Amino acid sequence: MKTKATFYHAGCPVCVDAEQNLAAALDPERFEVEHVHLGEQKSRVAEAEAAGVKSVPGLVIGGQPYHINFGAGIEALK
Amino acid sequence: MKTKATFYHAGCPVCVDAEQNLAAALDPERFEVEHVHLGEQKSRVAEAEAAGVKSVPGLVIGGQPYHINFGAGIEALK
Repeated sequence: MKTKATFYHAGCPVCVDAEQNLAAALDPERFEVEHVHLGEQKSRVAEAEAAGVKSVPGLVIGGQPYHINFGAGIEALK
Repeated sequence: MKTKATFYHAGCPVCVDAEQNLAAALDPERFEVEHVHLGEQKSRVAEAEAAGVKSVPGLVIGGQPYHINFGAGIEALK
């Protein structure tokens, strides 16, 4: 079974860059990556926060949050 | 040809976690990942800085630097 990874972003330049170069670099044989635009899906901000995401772009892999560079704080997306 | 990725770290807990869960998640078919412990290889700090790495753990993919969470600033490794 593949490990679930969720890439949370807000469409910002830092986010798009991380999406194209890092989220897209994960091994497709082992990971299933969901992309969530928190600016468009505000109902999922709480889920991201619960996973420990404090800023975007953020990548949650197997339940662990990884903040990649810094695009925007999650507070700005509420 | 595989894209070169370099994972710069300093053996810190944040670094080890990122190494095991993110650097190890890259697609081995497309990326060749080198692991560099800057605490043990201080001669490579300048190289990391030139690539844009400002803190560890840092992952440089295809020349672009990505800072993953925050373990230590690169200034602390000189």
